[in-house]
Formats: sequence, C-alpha cells, structure tokens
Amino acid sequence: MKKIEKKLQIAVFGASGYAGGELLRLLHLHPEVAVTLVTSEKSAGKPVDSVFPHLTAYNQMAFERIDFTSGQADRADLFFLALPHKTAQKTAAFLFNKGKCVIDLSADFRLRNPAVYEKWYQTPHTERAILKKTVYGLPELYRSKIRRAKLVANPGCYPTGAVLGLIPALRKSLVEPENLVIDSKSGVSGAGRAGRQELIFSEISGGFKAYSLAVHRHTPEIEQEISAVSGRDITLDFTPHLVPMNRGILTTIYARLTDTKMTLKEIHTVYRRAYAKEPFVKVLPLGQYPSTKNVQGTNFCHVGLQVNPRTDRLLVVTAIDNLTKGAAGQALQNMNIMMGYEEMTGINSMAVFP
Amino acid sequence: MKKIEKKLQIAVFGASGYAGGELLRLLHLHPEVAVTLVTSEKSAGKPVDSVFPHLTAYNQMAFERIDFTSGQADRADLFFLALPHKTAQKTAAFLFNKGKCVIDLSADFRLRNPAVYEKWYQTPHTERAILKKTVYGLPELYRSKIRRAKLVANPGCYPTGAVLGLIPALRKSLVEPENLVIDSKSGVSGAGRAGRQELIFSEISGGFKAYSLAVHRHTPEIEQEISAVSGRDITLDFTPHLVPMNRGILTTIYARLTDTKMTLKEIHTVYRRAYAKEPFVKVLPLGQYPSTKNVQGTNFCHVGLQVNPRTDRLLVVTAIDNLTKGAAGQALQNMNIMMGYEEMTGINSMAVFP
Amino acid sequence: MKKIEKKLQIAVFGASGYAGGELLRLLHLHPEVAVTLVTSEKSAGKPVDSVFPHLTAYNQMAFERIDFTSGQADRADLFFLALPHKTAQKTAAFLFNKGKCVIDLSADFRLRNPAVYEKWYQTPHTERAILKKTVYGLPELYRSKIRRAKLVANPGCYPTGAVLGLIPALRKSLVEPENLVIDSKSGVSGAGRAGRQELIFSEISGGFKAYSLAVHRHTPEIEQEISAVSGRDITLDFTPHLVPMNRGILTTIYARLTDTKMTLKEIHTVYRRAYAKEPFVKVLPLGQYPSTKNVQGTNFCHVGLQVNPRTDRLLVVTAIDNLTKGAAGQALQNMNIMMGYEEMTGINSMAVFP
Amino acid sequence: MKKIEKKLQIAVFGASGYAGGELLRLLHLHPEVAVTLVTSEKSAGKPVDSVFPHLTAYNQMAFERIDFTSGQADRADLFFLALPHKTAQKTAAFLFNKGKCVIDLSADFRLRNPAVYEKWYQTPHTERAILKKTVYGLPELYRSKIRRAKLVANPGCYPTGAVLGLIPALRKSLVEPENLVIDSKSGVSGAGRAGRQELIFSEISGGFKAYSLAVHRHTPEIEQEISAVSGRDITLDFTPHLVPMNRGILTTIYARLTDTKMTLKEIHTVYRRAYAKEPFVKVLPLGQYPSTKNVQGTNFCHVGLQVNPRTDRLLVVTAIDNLTKGAAGQALQNMNIMMGYEEMTGINSMAVFP
Repeated sequence: MKKIEKKLQIAVFGASGYAGGELLRLLHLHPEVAVTLVTSEKSAGKPVDSVFPHLTAYNQMAFERIDFTSGQADRADLFFLALPHKTAQKTAAFLFNKGKCVIDLSADFRLRNPAVYEKWYQTPHTERAILKKTVYGLPELYRSKIRRAKLVANPGCYPTGAVLGLIPALRKSLVEPENLVIDSKSGVSGAGRAGRQELIFSEISGGFKAYSLAVHRHTPEIEQEISAVSGRDITLDFTPHLVPMNRGILTTIYARLTDTKMTLKEIHTVYRRAYAKEPFVKVLPLGQYPSTKNVQGTNFCHVGLQVNPRTDRLLVVTAIDNLTKGAAGQALQNMNIMMGYEEMTGINSMAVFP
Repeated sequence: MKKIEKKLQIAVFGASGYAGGELLRLLHLHPEVAVTLVTSEKSAGKPVDSVFPHLTAYNQMAFERIDFTSGQADRADLFFLALPHKTAQKTAAFLFNKGKCVIDLSADFRLRNPAVYEKWYQTPHTERAILKKTVYGLPELYRSKIRRAKLVANPGCYPTGAVLGLIPALRKSLVEPENLVIDSKSGVSGAGRAGRQELIFSEISGGFKAYSLAVHRHTPEIEQEISAVSGRDITLDFTPHLVPMNRGILTTIYARLTDTKMTLKEIHTVYRRAYAKEPFVKVLPLGQYPSTKNVQGTNFCHVGLQVNPRTDRLLVVTAIDNLTKGAAGQALQNMNIMMGYEEMTGINSMAVFP
Repeated sequence: MKKIEKKLQIAVFGASGYAGGELLRLLHLHPEVAVTLVTSEKSAGKPVDSVFPHLTAYNQMAFERIDFTSGQADRADLFFLALPHKTAQKTAAFLFNKGKCVIDLSADFRLRNPAVYEKWYQTPHTERAILKKTVYGLPELYRSKIRRAKLVANPGCYPTGAVLGLIPALRKSLVEPENLVIDSKSGVSGAGRAGRQELIFSEISGGFKAYSLAVHRHTPEIEQEISAVSGRDITLDFTPHLVPMNRGILTTIYARLTDTKMTLKEIHTVYRRAYAKEPFVKVLPLGQYPSTKNVQGTNFCHVGLQVNPRTDRLLVVTAIDNLTKGAAGQALQNMNIMMGYEEMTGINSMAVFP
Repeated sequence: MKKIEKKLQIAVFGASGYAGGELLRLLHLHPEVAVTLVTSEKSAGKPVDSVFPHLTAYNQMAFERIDFTSGQADRADLFFLALPHKTAQKTAAFLFNKGKCVIDLSADFRLRNPAVYEKWYQTPHTERAILKKTVYGLPELYRSKIRRAKLVANPGCYPTGAVLGLIPALRKSLVEPENLVIDSKSGVSGAGRAGRQELIFSEISGGFKAYSLAVHRHTPEIEQEISAVSGRDITLDFTPHLVPMNRGILTTIYARLTDTKMTLKEIHTVYRRAYAKEPFVKVLPLGQYPSTKNVQGTNFCHVGLQVNPRTDRLLVVTAIDNLTKGAAGQALQNMNIMMGYEEMTGINSMAVFP
C-alpha cells in the first residue's frame, strides 16, 4: 500500500487507441509510476484487457468516460492525452489550469503559431495563452525546457524522424535548409485503430502507396522545427507513404551540401558527436543503413548517412517506431525528464526481433 | 564493478541465431544477471550489434568460437546452449561435469528415452548418464525438479504449446489421451536464420502450407509428456504448418471427451483452477480465443476452450511466442526457478501490439 | 458489333465486394461473354474503376442499384449473385422464374434441407420450391446436373477445399466418414471488404487465430456433401482459422483408415485416378504438399497426401484460392459447364507467383 | 501438330528465377507462341513444375543446361534471356549472330555507352558491335525501333517506373531535368530467388529499409533515358528501398517546375494526352494516386500527379509490377511489337486483387 502511494499516479486519456495501448504497455514496465485512470469514449465501461487482450496486467481496470465533474482531475498527477486533435485543447487546458502535468500526444499544441494550426487543421485554436507556455517535446532539442514544463506537446511521428535526421547537419550549416526533400514511409498503425475499409488487411497487404501528397498536416510541424534549428523560414517537400507493416517510420532525406568538399566521414563525425550523449539516437557506422525492424517497440532512432558526390547531396535515413519514439515512448521520455527520473527508465527495451 | 561481480554471469552459446538473439534481448532486461560470453561459430569475431543491429546494448561485445581450452567454462556461472541438436550433447556434458548450470535449448536432452531420440534424430546419444539427470524444463509440470536441476532441457516450441493445452484436461481425465489431433501453426522464425531459398520472403509471404506431415521431430516429445501426464503410452497426430508471420505458434487440439455430460463451463473452471497460480498461462474467458499477436515477444501462453456437443470433442486452442515461451523466455523462466529469482523477473513484458 | 451481340450477356449482382471484383476480373478474360450490368447497393452510381482501381477495363461502366422495375432482368442472359445470404433468396427466385440462368454465390441455396439452413443461418427460407430445383455447383460431384441446371448454388469456400480432399477416399471407403477432423486456414479476403476494426491491417498482420469454433456456418454444408458421398449421416469437427495473407485456404484433414494395410502409394493412385480427368484438381506427387501460394488467383485445387502409420490416419491437405475455386472461379467453371463452353475458358491462368 | 508448327517457338534462358517464371506464366496465356526450350544451370534436369509448382501447364518440360553445341539455337525463333548480367553478353551475341530474335532481360545491353556499363558493373563489355544494334526496349519511347529490332535490351525495373513518370513533363519542358529526386520502393522479388539470409522472411517482414544509397546500378540507366528525353546530360539522385511485399515498385519523383504558373490541371492534361494511345500507361484522375496493389501481375503502369505550390515542385508517383512491366511483361510487350502481334496479346490481364 505504502509503496503504491509513493508512486507517481498516471492517467491515460484516449487509451483505447494504438498510442494509448502503447502508453499502457510501457507504463507497466516503469517502476516509479502507477496507472490510476484510463479513459475511452468508445469503450467506456469495458475492461482494458477486453479491448487489448495483450494488456493482461490491466485486467482489473476498466475504461471510463472523461468526466471532470466526477473528480477525475484529482485521480492522477500526470495526464497523458492520446485524444484526437481539437478534443485535446480544452482537456489539456483544464488540467493545466488545475496545476497538473500534461503530456499531449495530439497536434493541438505542437505548432507555436496558432494561425498555422488553424490553417492546416481547419479548426480554431481556443487556448492560445496556454499554447505559449507549452514546450515542444523533442528532448534532443528542448530537454532543458521540458525539465521545467507543465504542458508538453509530444511531437508527431513523422516530424520526430525527419527532424532528428537533420539537426546536426543544420546546426553546423552542412546543408542548405532550402530545397529539402523528405520522403517518409510509415507502418499502418499510424493510421489508427478505426475500422475503415481502406485500412483492412486485404486492401493494404501486398501493396504500397503514397498519400496526402503536398498536404499532410505534419508538414508545418517539420517546417517549424527545421526553421527553428536553421534560423530561417523554411518550406519543404514532405511525402508520406504507407508500408504494409504494423509499426515503424523510415525517412529518407535529400539535402544539398553547402560545402561540396565536405567528406562523408567528416559529416559522420559531426553526427556522432552531436548525438554522443543522446540515449535514444544511434548514428550507425558508415556503410550501415537503418531498418525500422531494428527499432520496433523501442524508443530508439537509428540514423544512417551517405553522400552522393555526383549530385552534391547529403542523404540521411532515419528509422523510428511511430508508436514509441514517434508517440508513447517519447511521451514517457518526456515524463522521465519532467519528473527527474533517469531518462531511459521503462523505455530501455531493445527491439523484438525478428 | 562490485555490482557486476555480484551478478550471475551468463554465457550464451550459439547466440547468433534467433533463439540466441532473443536470449540476449531478454537477459538485458534482467537485473540480476550479466552476459559475459557469447559464442557463434559462423560469426566469431564479429561484434554482436553487427549481426543483430537491434541489440545496441551489446555493442562492446563480440562473438567467440567455442573453445574450452581457453577457459571459457570459467567465464560464466550459467550457460544457455542455443546450439544445433547433436552439437549440444558434448558441450552440455562438459559444462555439467564442470559443475556449471546448463539450460539446453536443443533437442538433445528432451527425450528421456535415448532410443527414441536416436530413432527420430538419426544420431547416437552419447551422454546417457547425464540424460538421466536432466530435467525437462516445462515449469508447469516440473517446477520443483527444475529448482534442483543443474541441467535443464528446455522444451521445444510446438510441445510447449501442445502440452500446456492438455495438462488440466488429462490430469482430470476429462478427455481420452488416445486419438488426439494436434494441428499447429508456426511463424517463420521457427525455421531459423539460415539463408535457404524456401525461407525467403517471396516464397513465404502470401502463402500458407503444411510440412513434415506425420514425421516432425517434436512428435515424440509431445507424446512423451502427454504419456507422462495421462499415465499411458500415447501416440498421436501432430501436423505443423508455416504461417507468413515472424513469431508465434497457435495450436488447435481435438480431444474426445470422456464424459459427454461435462459442460464447457465446468471444463473452463478446471482449466482456470489448474493454472490459477501459473504466472505465464492465461485461460481466456469463455467465448474468447487466443491470437499469437497478443503474446508476441512475451513468455505468456493464452488458452481458449470450446466444446463441440455435436461430436463430443473438446477443442483447445493455445497461443505462444515460439521464440519466447517456446524457447528463450522459457529458458529464462527456468533460470529464474533454478536460481531462486522471482519467476517473472526480466520476462514480465506484455506484447508489443500491434 | 456483330461479335458483341453474339456474346453471352452477363450481370453481376453485388459486384463491389471481393467475390464480385474477382468475377469481373475473370469475366474480362472470357472470350464468349460480355458484362452488361453490375450492381452494388453501397456504390450505386460510382464507376467500377473508382471502387476497384485495378479493373481498368470497366472504366466505362458504373454500378447500379438492383431495381427489377427498370427491366434489369432483361439486360442479361446469366446472372451471378454475389449478394449476402438472405438477400439472394428472392433475387434468385425472381430471375429463375423469369427463365434466366442464375449462379448464386451466397449460402441461400446450398443446403438442400431448408430446416438445416434455417437453423444455422437463423432466417427463414422462403423459396423452397426453387431450392428443390437447385444444383449444388461442385463440378467434381455434380457436373452432369450442372449441365442441365438453371440455378446453381455455388459452393462455399471452405466446403470446396474440404470436400475435394475427401471424395476419392470416401467413394472407395478408404476412410471412415465418422470422426473426421477438418482444420482449415483462410486468407483474410474471405471475411469480406467491410471496414471492421478486427479486420484492419494492424490487427491481423503478424498474428494468427482460430474463430467460430464448432459453430461455423460452413459446417452443415461440408457435412451435407460428405454425407452424400459416403451415404451416411455425418457430423464432424470443422475449425476455421485466419491467416495473415490475402487469399487462399489450406485445409488439413484427419481421417481414420478403414484398412490399415492400405499403403500411401495405393491411396495416391486412387486419388490420381479419381481426378485424372478433372481440369482443376491436381493431386501432387508423393512427398509434395500444397501451398496456397501456388494456386492464388487460379481455379486450381492442389491435393497432397500422407499416411500416419503410427495412428492409422490418412492426412489430406488441399489448397485453393478462396475467391477463385472457392467463389468466382468456380462460378465461371459452372457457367462454362451450363453454357457448353470448354470448361477452362477464361480460368486457365496459372498462379501469379511469387 | 500443324497448329504448333505455326506458332512462334520460344526459348527462355535462365528460366528458374522469378523473371523466368513470370515469362513462362505469361507465355502460356499467349495464343501465338509455344515454349520449346527452357534452361537453368542450377535446376538442369528438373521438371519445371518441381521448381515452380504453380506452373502446372509445364509439367511435361524440364530445364536444360545452356549448350549451343547441341543445337539449342535451332530450337526456337525468339530467345528471352533472363540470365545474370555479364553471362548474357556472349549468349545474346551468339544468338544474334545466328539471326535469332533476342530479348535480353539482363543489364548487359541497356547502357548505350559501354564505358558507363564497365564503370557501374565492373566488368568488360565484350560485344560492343552488337551493343550498337541493340534497341532499348521501352515501347513508350522506342516503339518504332523495337518493331525493326533483332536484339532488344529490356529495361530495368526501376528505370521503367522512373522514366515513365517523367517523359511527358520533360518532353514539354514542364520541369527541370536537373535536381531530380527519385525515391523508389520495391517489393522483395526484385532481389531474386537465391537463398540469402538477408532475404529470409523473418528478416524482411515487418520492416522497411533503404539500400544502395547513391550507388545503385540502375542510376546510370535512368540518367541515360532522362538525358535522352531532355536533351541534356543529367545526373540525379535515385534511392531504392525494400518493401515487405512480393511484387511492385512505387516511385516518387520530385521535379522543379520550369513555369510556376503551370497548374496541376494543365500538367494532368499533358500527361493524359501523352499517354492517350499507350495501352499500358494509365494516368489516374486528379486526386488519385497509384498503389502497387492495383497493378500486381499486370503490365500496367499507373501514374498519379500533384503540384506542391509551396515549393514549386511537380510530384509524380508511378506504380508498376517489377516482374511484369518491370521485366517479363514488358519483354512480352516487346515481343508483340517485334512480331507484329496486337500489343496486349497475352498481357491483358488485370490485377489479382486483393
């Protein structure tokens, strides 16, 4: 009893989707926390393990509907919001104003400029005051701010893989931030758990396609962080694709070298140094390229590098798990930073391979 | 330093195959042990993470060739052998005679009758004295013997799923042990990591087939344990199939009811009670059937039950991960039992889903 | 122009599902027919190639709603009904009474005893008079009747694979028709094209499960034909499973030998002779077993045989494509027989492999 | 007998690989030809259907070793060479000099400049005289030359998808040929049928990766044709990726617009007109993008278009089947053109979907 009281109490809102399920899986492995509240509008009243039969450790817990009149805000210290965008805004604001720690996995607080949010998401942003106090939760860029944050906007899956691939090169001005081509390929879990015809197995398996060309909503988020790192206003091409696999995002980045005499080996050294102390970013040895398979279920980001001397471009390939480093794992990493836990606690597993 | 010295020192022989890789993944999550030696004949000299890029935590360790003249036997307290059958015999014997703890994942010590081994594996058994001292490492049957064992024969993947599906029914004589039909379906990792044409992606993906009809070597192992539980000499039909997925075994069992008035509900209660204290066997609620997806990467066995009143048969379906409960996870469970650790230590993860 | 007028005019009802799409694909390859009408309640008004982008040859045709008041019955000579069961009854009856040829892919006219239909499908059978005139469309059993039929009940996918595996053995009384175990594994397209959560890629891929244990509606259909061939009333165990692949059904059959001195070679000869003139059933050489991959997209059924001398059981494995020999392909085969075309016309393709 | 004599006699060299198997599958559907000779060094002496169990129609034919001393050159009119590069050179030359028609699926005669071949393939080109007489077999570019050719170099799979995506834009100078980024994703059959560890199912399934960054041998072939169409010497970035699916290549192309006032609709019209008479290239309606699933097993190329007004880039996505339009299907298309058959003969099937 005493032990449980000392644990950090955690609520997961919107816990019946894939990111929610991944949060529950990872939180179970974290020794300092206890999940005390899980919500789902669709599955309210159902036991967690009837919706996620793999989550056997939660067999005594049922989903509830969000209802702050019943004192839900008092039932946890830290709230993960895995709610749809738009829905998250008010919930996050309410909890933030109550003094709670909030890690929001939706898109609602990722874009610092609310006008950009309103344009791309076609919905008003009603919590601008709170937006200003939000920290974008990419630890590799904002760790010290996250440490002091009360509301963290957990990055999108595609932006995580894209931005991590460019930080070292942009910081050292090795490449031009203009004219970037970012070609990403995601597993199907990124499309969510709703039963839509286009997502059923027979429609996906054995095929590969592009989608949302030139209009994907993660574009402004990537541009925001690339602009922030490079100190210029950047627009870029970002194309997502759907891979017939469950998890993972591979991102292939094409960037013009600023100095064509720069060697691959020198660039590799820049990347290695930039990420030397990062617990979750692994710059692969020269000649090796990442596969999503090697990071599945983990919070790692693998980075591979190549130079094309015939076109003077730097090619960067990154691999993450969209549900882990691209969502729930990074959310736990942010929690660990906010709470002062060792950063890898609960998320130190290596990939389940094969 | 001191901490490491206190940890149990572990060697993994034959660590470059899938079961070996799974052992390394799981051992990394175990707080009481440290891997001090890994061998691979094919990959000797190579860093572990060049052979398994996902095993980033082993980036300072390289595979060695087995060579007892160099004092390898002294470099660990407990040895996992993930070697091919036949090769394991002498290695296990040598280590056993040195007083080491050995958990052998090969087939060499599973069959208590060496004549049966020699018939099905077409190779002599040269370590009959040691075979007598071996314990068959199915904790649900032999936990107390495992506790005192020095050499544990880790069960085969198919036998694990098959036997766990029948123990409660046979112990209570709910079904006839004769005339059993055991129809199993395995993921492809069960076929190993060697580059064989019949295993390449294009040959497997999108297809399903049966193999080794009536002649699979796990047949006598299943028969041995079914005979042991039921107290009669049993032969049965066992058919393995290959599923286009990486991990998992689903086993569908058809058994004649001894008492046709027995209800499904009563049988379900028998199973629930039989496995009530088993940390890794979950009897699903009535109406639910297992999927390999819900146990992938875990040491759990899920069990579903149905009765066909039109044919008076009990239908049992079990799901395990062939590399975890069917190999490396069960090996760690056996280690935990042998060493007196809490039985779920290091193997308490839930499935990576989806 | 003249050529088109001479072609048999074909309507496909319920053409926006997978069996409907397969019918359209195959009919396009048939030189003697022209599709003149396609219906879909859900997609009425939409061009065929917006619903099935692969069916580029139908880019001038749109789906219509079923509406017999508009003279649809006059727009074709032969009607394929790929409608849900229950819906098909009245539509088939109306067309039959109009003197049209009907091949019904639903379950509505497969069970000769309407009471059995009503029990398993929980809906009344309102067309009993017509049911009596229906022929069960398994050419290997009823070719001569199909030749003279006006209404053919196209067999279910599982029954096709199961029954073809047993006909030669039952006809020659090589096995007991009692105590059969039929363990089938199907690709996901068998579950249809509706957007249901349990069918989405992430829920299916990487996993394997059983479903509908002891209660699947194809059971009485299999029993009906096994009873007809063996001349006894048979009940049996049939268990379907879901394989993470698009197409194909593999069926593993366990049957007790009546004469334990019968050799595998003799049984193989019986099967070879029984199917020698069948254009679509291939009995594989001894030692070879079928894979669904080798029949995908085709109307073939591959059959493999083994005897387990330790249990005196015959093991039969059959592979078909559930959408082709298990649905649309067999429907075209029936059409060819009814119309007097060469039986392989339009369905002579071999599998797309890999 | 007489009928067979009138058919064009066909030999397939290197017929036990995937492209060879696809040739045999398609040739069987072609009414004007008869396969009279198939070779395979590895499988010499084996029946075709033991190596490809799906090719049941070839059950009376066995693979032979290539041996021109035995008169093999006289046993066919047209030879498809599905041999490894380097091996094909001399074989093609020998047959060409005998006056035979040759369609070479290897890379040996694709690059018009032998120095480029020797640099990228690291092997001498010994048949330069014949190279000059070779026609590059992309019908959409060279149909009239193919009509008169005796030796056709069948294009590589990646170049086919890449070049078809750019021809209309480059011909009308809608985009700059410089600075192209071509990001391609291929199914696994492109890697061949050899049993290599990196290709086994467990290594591939569930993962996605890039390979051969900046060094893939199809790069100079793409550059050659892009240069030919645009009339300038072009270098470009081409990156191949491996998708966990059997067949298909999706190519995403990023090209700078020359005139930023050009609308998507206008560009779409240019593409529609350019390909209006092409039997195998389908420009999809605006708003639709191709999927490899819709072309699998077919000779079609689907093309989708988008403009990114924020970056002034044209985005083109093409989908082909790597074994059909990317290899064997295009080879038959070339044969049809060379022989004066209707161009779709034998390759008019639509995709097997799902």
